[in-house]
Parts: sequence; structure tokens; C-alpha cells
Amino acid sequence: MTIITDAEVKTASVPQLKEICEKLRKEIFDTVSVCGGHLSSNLGTVELTVALHRAFDFPRDKIIFDVGHQCYTHKLLSDRAARFSTLRQEGGISGFPKRQESEYDCYDTGHAGTAISAALGIAKARDLQGEDFNVIALIGDGSFNNGLVFEALNSLHILNTRVLIVVNDNGMSISPTVGGTHDILGELKAGMKPESIALFEQYGLTYMGVYNGNDFSELLPALDEAKKTLKTSSVLLHVITRKGQGYPFCENAPEATHGVSPQGGEAQKEYSAALGEELCALAEHDKRIVAVTAAMTDSLGLREFFRRFPERAFDVGICEEHASVLCAAMATQGMRPYYAIYSTFLQRAFDEIIHDVCGQELPVTFCIDRAGITGADGETHQGVFDLSYLSFIPNLTIAIPKDVGEFRAMLRAGVRWNAPLAIRYPRAGVESPVLPIEIGKMEILHSTMSDITMLAAGERCISLAEEVRRRTAERGMDFTLVNARFLKPLDGELLENLPQKHIITLEDNVKIGGLGDAIARFYRNSEKKIYSFGYDDAFIPHGTPRSLAEKHGLSREALEDLIISLYARG
Amino acid sequence: MTIITDAEVKTASVPQLKEICEKLRKEIFDTVSVCGGHLSSNLGTVELTVALHRAFDFPRDKIIFDVGHQCYTHKLLSDRAARFSTLRQEGGISGFPKRQESEYDCYDTGHAGTAISAALGIAKARDLQGEDFNVIALIGDGSFNNGLVFEALNSLHILNTRVLIVVNDNGMSISPTVGGTHDILGELKAGMKPESIALFEQYGLTYMGVYNGNDFSELLPALDEAKKTLKTSSVLLHVITRKGQGYPFCENAPEATHGVSPQGGEAQKEYSAALGEELCALAEHDKRIVAVTAAMTDSLGLREFFRRFPERAFDVGICEEHASVLCAAMATQGMRPYYAIYSTFLQRAFDEIIHDVCGQELPVTFCIDRAGITGADGETHQGVFDLSYLSFIPNLTIAIPKDVGEFRAMLRAGVRWNAPLAIRYPRAGVESPVLPIEIGKMEILHSTMSDITMLAAGERCISLAEEVRRRTAERGMDFTLVNARFLKPLDGELLENLPQKHIITLEDNVKIGGLGDAIARFYRNSEKKIYSFGYDDAFIPHGTPRSLAEKHGLSREALEDLIISLYARG
Repeated sequence: MTIITDAEVKTASVPQLKEICEKLRKEIFDTVSVCGGHLSSNLGTVELTVALHRAFDFPRDKIIFDVGHQCYTHKLLSDRAARFSTLRQEGGISGFPKRQESEYDCYDTGHAGTAISAALGIAKARDLQGEDFNVIALIGDGSFNNGLVFEALNSLHILNTRVLIVVNDNGMSISPTVGGTHDILGELKAGMKPESIALFEQYGLTYMGVYNGNDFSELLPALDEAKKTLKTSSVLLHVITRKGQGYPFCENAPEATHGVSPQGGEAQKEYSAALGEELCALAEHDKRIVAVTAAMTDSLGLREFFRRFPERAFDVGICEEHASVLCAAMATQGMRPYYAIYSTFLQRAFDEIIHDVCGQELPVTFCIDRAGITGADGETHQGVFDLSYLSFIPNLTIAIPKDVGEFRAMLRAGVRWNAPLAIRYPRAGVESPVLPIEIGKMEILHSTMSDITMLAAGERCISLAEEVRRRTAERGMDFTLVNARFLKPLDGELLENLPQKHIITLEDNVKIGGLGDAIARFYRNSEKKIYSFGYDDAFIPHGTPRSLAEKHGLSREALEDLIISLYARG
Repeated sequence: MTIITDAEVKTASVPQLKEICEKLRKEIFDTVSVCGGHLSSNLGTVELTVALHRAFDFPRDKIIFDVGHQCYTHKLLSDRAARFSTLRQEGGISGFPKRQESEYDCYDTGHAGTAISAALGIAKARDLQGEDFNVIALIGDGSFNNGLVFEALNSLHILNTRVLIVVNDNGMSISPTVGGTHDILGELKAGMKPESIALFEQYGLTYMGVYNGNDFSELLPALDEAKKTLKTSSVLLHVITRKGQGYPFCENAPEATHGVSPQGGEAQKEYSAALGEELCALAEHDKRIVAVTAAMTDSLGLREFFRRFPERAFDVGICEEHASVLCAAMATQGMRPYYAIYSTFLQRAFDEIIHDVCGQELPVTFCIDRAGITGADGETHQGVFDLSYLSFIPNLTIAIPKDVGEFRAMLRAGVRWNAPLAIRYPRAGVESPVLPIEIGKMEILHSTMSDITMLAAGERCISLAEEVRRRTAERGMDFTLVNARFLKPLDGELLENLPQKHIITLEDNVKIGGLGDAIARFYRNSEKKIYSFGYDDAFIPHGTPRSLAEKHGLSREALEDLIISLYARG
């Protein structure tokens, strides 16, 4: 990779800029092909980012990338070009902005809708400290639906500061953008502007748009103008880009190429596909069933459900809180809502899980995908807190399937469970026969006369437990293995009757507040000894799931050592 | 109380309606004077609620009261007039809408901004079930700032259903309403309407307004018209009411009379007052300090700070998420933000605590007021989850002062603590000398040779522990008492050196995921026996704090029995 400096970008002619963009685009495409990553969103914003680097002086000026799915060009243009081939690899550079990685990254992102709030905070601090630099929030039209955006716009007058908001409008979140806010942007694009401009102006923004964000002849003068206006007013610069720009198969399938896995992934069953299949089958015979998603129809496996049951399928945009309340409200009327969402994004709806769903004890099922360590997306996407943030919520049942078949069984059993239910599962796993399941009952997978029982929750942990058991059993050190498939309610009957003294717990979650603590609470002051394995109390960066799990607390070797030492003690 | 029926309301003449309102208003005022409750907000909405009961058929039609600070008239007009004198009393009726209390309450509220989402969910379920009733969301202009509102508006087109949104505009949250959204409502009130109307129309609403919500001659025809329009379109009906209407001292002090305590409360120091005093003193010498609140300046003790340091004081409206991101962003630039908020409302910013503040390890201090059981507001306002939802977040320090003096010391020590800090405290407590404190160090309050140590966290628990100790010591059964003032980091040095075998923990929080679990984790597989006291795994309804605490897990008698039984065992 030739390293392109900011100085080059600032002095280049437009044809040279186009050449630079082609180089950057190729670098992104080639790297993502090997490393995986966010492809279409980054391909679409190459020109826009180059133009921003030309117009502004980073790192003195500050730019916040909302979500961060479009920061690769910025990384290549700041100080990470030489390391770009390590993208998303363990120990390599992150796929998201990271303050610790570079002074060019002023604010870490990963979840949607924070950029304008963050820009306002940075700008206000600048004013208070008597400094004078520019602050830019780059935000997609998908994020613009999120409530945080309006909370931030609401305080523009209050904070009395100046920021540049660049709306990167490509008509997509991960799914196509939907809803009234998007319609407003759409009217602006269609030239039916006055009322829509007035909306932004009422919040205190000078509206500028719309510009073709893949065309320097429009972008460069627009940014110059925006920079001037920014001296006296906050600006909303409305830019249209084409997701996947430059690579026709990305342009034509922006949802499928939003996030790309490195070539040669494992051939496992996606839990999301199973979710879609089960919900369709259930909905066929049960008119109460509705499915809700916050802008991730495909990734959550709901495309077919949306096709077959459009009147009972709702993509409400990146509005995780609203989706929860909507589910709760539908449930008050006898519907059975299934809300599919990634583990870390559900954190956004934490209050609504408590206040709306569990407070009213309503039969909403949270289908929590990408639970546990997810890997390459890093800190903001590791689903390692959900067992902790759900376990203390009254009225909530928490299920953790050991494989795809059990997940299907849980979904089927859940239909008759007239109370809030959370099912958390990883991206992919093993397909298996669907056996009937009783809510709240664990399962003994392997029974022994040894004095050791391992309680493992979820596919990663069951698989690790089985691996450890195979290896220690070969050496004559076997143990009982329990599929701890319900964290709540705990299976008191099974736990009370476990004869073993040594109880080892495994969970794909931080140790604090999860399964280990629940089991230890159950056995408190008994003769049992409890050994908990899960993740340490720290944020887990990007890397390979298996390696990260091993490194951060689910260590096969440590487990084997424990078994050996327990056998040695007799 | 004469019971006023819906039939009367529907057939009364306007002069009769006014008489009905005077009766209702007197009943509300008299009851709140005795029971405490939300006064000004309820006084302001008497006419509006009466008019809604006249225009619609409850419970067939459904009404959702956003937050619920304005539902008293509805309770009096539905089926709770005879029980109204039990308002907010233990075992009596709730101060908020409660489905379990009456079929006239279709959706429980308590936190801001859920009503439109909930109305949409109920309306959509109605459509799917082929039913035909009206759904109304009654929401104040203060709540209208909340991000959830825009998430809900965004999905009006998507859901393709019809609801009536009544905006009760009294210019207030608990504090005066602020921000751009409020300015838009303000322009509508001032008659500068076209752009603002267009905003709502772009989201799919027919705008009707503004009407005087305390005047039947405007209200009755407006509601008739809205009801007609609702057959073909969702409607936003903009109504102006006067908070405190009818009681001049309420009208003149709507913030002070928003929530009223029963006559003859305890004379304790408010923690919020101490917060204000300390922050002012610190800010005097430290220009990095800023204070942020989400629409509760006075209740959180920040009025004087806002007066003295207006450039460093930010009320961003009911936007808990935005406030957190703003704090994180200011902290990236070297500022030291203090974000004061009630415990249950901070649940709204859960993801931002993780993603923005702790993920970036920024020195933001969360001043978490109304932690622990708060009493009369019931389920949605009991601050009994914060220790659980904070304890597993990496990089966060969690402090629990035992009295007001210690709270002051924590705030002072916190200024030099270059990392995220959460301090959780109840409404009021004992003033005491300010002694220097070291972050992360617990304090031995009373040392004995007995085999029992009690670790108590926070004022309610320390006070209970001392009471128990006084009583058991009189009978010769003393124990060591530790002020467990930091849940995180745990004071390993002190805990390792505690000689006692029996460790009792007390916390003003649910037992799952709090102090008891942390201490048990620390001592796991040691010879120690751990006995945890805190609240059971259930939502705690309204009542007297002391009685609720006793009933739900912090029982003095149970503690004494435990001490006695431990002594008996020798």
C-alpha cells in the first residue's frame, strides 16, 4: 500500500483525487476480502472522507464517525495505512474508531446515534476552554432515526455551540432506512424542500444540501461553504452517497455486503436462519405472533417472515427502545411479539425491558442474537453482558440454548410461556434434532460417579466442556456435565439433587452477575465448592472468537488443570 | 367524595362540567395534602381529562398517560374514586396508571416518553385483531423532548395505524421545558405555525391546535373534531394547560409543587442539597467541572450551581441518553462532568454508561439520587437495581456513602479520580463531619472479637445495622460492623483480613447482582459463611420506605434472629 498523506490530499487536483480514491477503494476491498469487515458502507464514503481530509485539519479538527462503519478511509488517511492489513485481526487495528489507536480518532463509536451528542460535547468543551477547532459528526441516514439524534438536536440551542453534521444519506441502515425521518430526508432529496429544511432550521441548524457525496465537483465547494458557515452557525450538510460505490456487486447488494466475513468461514447453521424458520412455522398457525426488528431484518433471519407475514412484521429502524415498548404494548392486547436484536444493541432498551415488558409481566420474547464473544468487531459488539444485565430483572425467564435444535425447541415452548422470555444465542452453531423442552429445566448430558459437575451454558461452553471432558476422561478423570440452559428460573430440583461436591460453571459472558454467581448464590453456605469460568472484568477487544474466549477467561487449559487438581486432591 | 360517573360527565352542561372539575380539583388537592403526590401536573389536567372522558368511551377506548403524573382525574372518573384517599399508601391505589388496578388503565407508565410507542402498539394490535376502538396518548411537552418520542413518530408510516396524540403543553417537565423541540411547540403557540405543522405532518400526523386545555368551550369541540379526524388519520392535538391550575400558589411555583410530600415529613439533610453545595465549592476552583441534568435541576440540588456557573451547567431536557454521551464527550477534552440523575432514570442511559463512558474510561461522575427504595411512587421509581446494573461494567468505580458527610468526601475525592465514578445515595439523610476518604477503602465502624461481621452499604443499611447491633449487643451478642462504602473496587485488603467466619451483607438493592453477590464471590470456597440481605427478586410496589424495606428483605427481625442463631451455634 502506498501511503497517502493529508498533504497530498490537500494539494491534489480533482483527477488526482479520483486516483487517490481508486487506490483507497482497492485497498479497502482487498483488505476486507481477507480480514472481513464493513464493506459497502466504507466503499460509499471514500470521496466524502477524502474531501473532509482536504477541507479540515485533523487531528486538530475533530471528526466523530457515527457507528464507525465508514471510518476505513479515515484510518488509511491518518496514521494507520501501514497497519491496515491487520484490520480486525487480533492485536491489529480496530474496525471502529478508537482513541487509544490514534490521536486522529477523538471518540469511540460502535452503536448508532451517538455522533451528534458527542460532537456537541466536544464542541462545548472547546468553547469553555477558549479553543478554536472544528467539530464534525458524520452520520448515516439510518442512524438518523435513532432517538439520541433528536435528543442531541433538541439541545443545540441549549448548548449554544457550533458543529458540522454531515448526513451521509445512502438510504440504508444495515437494512434499507425506513420511517418518517427518512421520508423527510427523502423529500429533501426530491427537491421538495421548504418544510423539511424548516425542521432542521428550527433546531438551530443551517441546512445545506443535497450534494452528491461521490462527486468532488459538488463536494469540495460544498465543504468549503460549510466550513465558512460553521463560523457562525451549526450546519447540517446533506450528502448522498452510494453504498458499495465502485464495486457493482456491492452497489447491487448493499445489505448483503454491509458486513463481510473473511473468505472461507465455517459451514455452520446460523441461529438467525433457524429463528426465521421457526417464527414462520409458528406464525402460520398462530395469528398472535408478530416479529419486530430495529433495522436488521436480514442479519436476524427475518427476511422470509417479512415476506410471508408483512402485516405482522415490523422493522422500525434503529430504534431499540421504541421497538421494546411497541412489543410490550402489543402484548397487552394479546399479541405475542418476538423482538430479534443483537445482544449489545439490546443494551439500548434496558430500561424498557424493566419498565415496560417485565414490570407489566408481558409475554414478549427477546431473541438475543450475537450473544457471547463475537470477535472481530471488538469491544462495542461483544455480547458478554446480557446474562448480567438480565439476571436481576424480576419476571424474566432467561434461556441459553446449547445448539440450534434446542433453540428451536425453546422458541416452540416459548409460545406457551405467558411471561417475558429472553433467549440468547451466538451467530452460528450445530443443527440438531428438536426435542421437547420444559422451561426452567436443565439437562444432564453426561452422568458420572465422580465428585465433579460442570454446568455449561450455551454452545461455546458446552462445546468447550465436551472437549475438556474428552481429554480428561481419556486420562481417567471424568465428570458430570449439565446443560445449564436456563439461567432463570434456576432448576432448583436438579441443583438440589446434584451429589457432586465440586461445581464448575462455564458461561460465554462476564463472570460478574451471570451464571456462576447465580449457582454460587443457590449453593451459598453449602458444602459445595464453586469454580466459575467466564470473562474477566474488562472490555474485550477484537480478535478471533475462540482465541479471545481462551484468553479472557474460558481457558481449556485452566479447566483441565482444575479437573486434574480436583482429582489429585481426591 | 361524591363519585362522579362517566355518564354524568357525558351528559353534563358546561357549567355542570365546571362544577365537576372544582370537585375533582378539591379532591386531588385535599388528598395530595395528606398522602403526598404529584400536585401541579394533576391540577392542570382536570378539564382535559374530563373532556376526554366525555368524548371517548373508556375502558373500550384506551388512554396511555405518559409518565403518569397526570392520571389522578382519570382515576377519580373511572373506578377508583372510593379508594382515592388511599392514594400512594401501602396497599392503596398507585399514583401511576396500573393495569392490575383497573381495566381503565391499559398501560403502566412512570418513565418519560413511552406513551406514543405504547399507543402505536395497542392500535396496531387492534388493527390486526379487526377491532375498532380509539387509542389516545396523553403526553406532556417535557416528555416530548425524549428520544423515544421521535422513534415512535418515525414509525407512524411504517405501522400504518391511527392514534390520537394529545400534547399537554404546560411549558414544564419537572423543570421548565427546554430545547429545540420545545421551541417548535412554542412557535405553534405563538401562531407562527406553518413550518412546525409541517414537521408533524411529515411524520404522518394531522396537527390540530392550539387549544386552551383548561377551557371547555375550546376543548369540547376540538376533541369532537379530533375524534372525527382520527377515523382517517393520526392526530396530534396540541393543548395548553396551566400547571397548578386553580391553586394560585401552585400556578406560581409549578416546579416546587410538582411532587409534594405529605405534611409533616422528616427534617433531614437532602443529599441533593449537599451535591449542590459541594459542586459549587469545587467548581469555584476547578474550571473543568460541569454539571448536567435531564430536566430536574431543582430536585437534584443544582439550582445554585446553575445560577453561579450558567456557562458550565446544562439541563438538556428529559434526554438521559444524550446527557451521558455529552458528558463522555466533554470528558475526552479534559472536562470533569457530573451527571446528576435519579437511579431508575439512569436505566435509560445504560448502554451509554457502558459504550461511551466506561468503554472509553472517561472521568464522568454519575451522581445517582433516589437510590434504594424510594417509597410512594412505587415500582417504576424504586432505585433498587443500580448496584446490579453497574457492578459488572468494567472500569467503573461504585461508591455508596453512609451519610451526607461521607457523600461530600466522596465528591471531593472523586475530583482526583481519573476514571468513571458512580455515587449512589438516597433522598435524605444525616449530615455529618467530612472526613477524608480513600477511593476503594471500606471502613470498620465497630470492631469486636465476635465471629460475626456485618457489611452494610448506604445510609438505610448502616442505620439498620446499628439498630440491630444496639439491640443484640444489649443481649450480649455484639458483632463487627463495616461500612461497605465501595462496591467496586472491593476492598480486598480489608476483606482478606477480616477474621470473622460469618459475614452478613446488607444492601438497599435487589439481592441479585449486588453487594452480597460480590462479597460471596470474593470469599468463594473459603471457610466464610455469607448471609445476604437485600430485596427479593420482585418489583416493589408503593408504600412507606421503611415498611417496604422491612417487608421485601431488609427485616430487622430476621437480622436479629440470624445473629441470635449464629451465637447459639457458638
